[in-house]
Amino acid sequence: MRIAIDAMGGDYAPSEIIKGAVSGAREYGIGLLLVGPQPIIEKELARNDHRGLDIEIEHTDEYLIEGEQAAYTLRQKRHASILLAVKAIKEGRAAAAIGVGPTGGVFASALQVLGTLEGISRPVVGSPVIGFASSTFLVDLGGNVDSRPDQLLDFAVIGTVYARKWMNIPEPTVALLSNGKEEGKGNDMVKQTYALFKKSGLNFIGNVEGNDLAMGKANVIVCDGFVGNCLVKFCEGLGTQIAHWMTGELKGKLAEDEIQRMTGTLLRYTVPADTSGGGPLLAVNGVVCKAHGRSKAPEVALTFGTAKRAVELDMVGTFKAELAAARARLNLPGTG
Amino acid sequence: MRIAIDAMGGDYAPSEIIKGAVSGAREYGIGLLLVGPQPIIEKELARNDHRGLDIEIEHTDEYLIEGEQAAYTLRQKRHASILLAVKAIKEGRAAAAIGVGPTGGVFASALQVLGTLEGISRPVVGSPVIGFASSTFLVDLGGNVDSRPDQLLDFAVIGTVYARKWMNIPEPTVALLSNGKEEGKGNDMVKQTYALFKKSGLNFIGNVEGNDLAMGKANVIVCDGFVGNCLVKFCEGLGTQIAHWMTGELKGKLAEDEIQRMTGTLLRYTVPADTSGGGPLLAVNGVVCKAHGRSKAPEVALTFGTAKRAVELDMVGTFKAELAAARARLNLPGTG
Repeated sequence: MRIAIDAMGGDYAPSEIIKGAVSGAREYGIGLLLVGPQPIIEKELARNDHRGLDIEIEHTDEYLIEGEQAAYTLRQKRHASILLAVKAIKEGRAAAAIGVGPTGGVFASALQVLGTLEGISRPVVGSPVIGFASSTFLVDLGGNVDSRPDQLLDFAVIGTVYARKWMNIPEPTVALLSNGKEEGKGNDMVKQTYALFKKSGLNFIGNVEGNDLAMGKANVIVCDGFVGNCLVKFCEGLGTQIAHWMTGELKGKLAEDEIQRMTGTLLRYTVPADTSGGGPLLAVNGVVCKAHGRSKAPEVALTFGTAKRAVELDMVGTFKAELAAARARLNLPGTG
Repeated sequence: MRIAIDAMGGDYAPSEIIKGAVSGAREYGIGLLLVGPQPIIEKELARNDHRGLDIEIEHTDEYLIEGEQAAYTLRQKRHASILLAVKAIKEGRAAAAIGVGPTGGVFASALQVLGTLEGISRPVVGSPVIGFASSTFLVDLGGNVDSRPDQLLDFAVIGTVYARKWMNIPEPTVALLSNGKEEGKGNDMVKQTYALFKKSGLNFIGNVEGNDLAMGKANVIVCDGFVGNCLVKFCEGLGTQIAHWMTGELKGKLAEDEIQRMTGTLLRYTVPADTSGGGPLLAVNGVVCKAHGRSKAPEVALTFGTAKRAVELDMVGTFKAELAAARARLNLPGTG
């Protein structure tokens, strides 16, 4: 298995990226396709022990820079390193691609080159974002505002596959976020979705409310992308405020490093480092993994393990098959 | 000024209610109308020093019980004490009414007897719910799901009046909750509301995101009731989880009472005791205050101060005038 990586993306590119790629290749027994300016890559490779590894370099002088408008820039930089890394999947030269940054560039490249899964119009973002409920996958957290009931069904199917295959939860429960537990509570869209979920064959347990999100009441909690976006950002803001308050309260009462440890835990539980969760991008027609922009070599190496796992589990094929099956059960269009 | 109170509502009725009413009457220099079974009220009055106070009793044997479906029960109990307390406003025998519980009964009585403000179809619930942003009034937190842009305008006007008159903020800033700061971000409803707010004459500062809610970025933050309900309940759930985690972390490192004090503060900051905030019900055509069901005499007494203040500030008249003015500026219907 060969995995492509954009050598020029991320805060610590190229040195930490190459270092992490070399160590990931050795650890997971995979080949590398390093995309970026050849002289830079060769110089960085020379600083790492890469004896016996299967490494290819794809040369390009173009790459994205943090702060650029990704969708626009990719039209100018047709040979951007992230774009070429993703193209390698399409051309069969790599089984997966990794991008460390910028986030917009990784998403846009995946969408442009691979497209979304059949019947899905925009990327779906979901993740166990709340540390206190690490077995709860919340979806959609992305930009799918004004979602339709059939899109929420897609979110539920994607969440179920992810929870079962990726998080090893045998029969994931699915719930719908609403403003009350009872059937009949919710806005029009939620009520229509409730009816759809009941017939879907999913392990649907009904509505949950906002206070259930952090309590692990369901493995997959489905909401419109507008609501999910507000919630995950609120979680971040509230967590940050509580961490700040807690630091002030504990100052002088506990040792500094103890306070820092607690604050760090709380922030990890509430401030999602990256809503792609380090896992593969969902709803994209191929395995593309986004590592956090601040990743250093160890995190980069780990992402190779993630990408390899996504390929071996055939996440993309399973998403496709189960999306089609769910739509067919409900006689919805888009069954392929 | 005479203020009516349902003597039979609340966890500690009637004794703590009567005790609190007597002390509130003395403290704020107001007359009382105590509604409930006369023998019970007289017995409780005898246990309190009420010399020199102006007290009337309105006898009824009917009252609501926690757990009853309020809207249904009020049709059976046409002489329920809370209903009669609110009727006293309409009949000019009281300037305001106080109910301590059940919440549904207080809301339903206010709506049945007084109705909502001109042009408002359902009760509006708003409050500075997040302790870390005590100058931020979030609205709607109630059941106004599928709100229309003109309803969000009503929320914004009500929030502005409340922030200015009740919270003493001279020129309250108004923001719209969205999934991005830029104009053009949001679902269809938010985008339409943005356009409306820009022309509204409100002190509109644009969109804020979920992470801004706890940061005090605006004095009034407006959202659809579905989103507000999810957020305020999520705040509660997350706060409870963090308090639990914090207690475990600090056990054995700090004194028990210190841990309890911190936990108490955190819960007060995140778990709204009552989304009516102890203030007057919004969008109702008269001053009705709901005290928390767990209120004892001191909280009951304080609620008399709240009710008196709402009357003196003419909250209801100001809501009406400013709602009409905002609609007139935008040529919206419902200008009365």
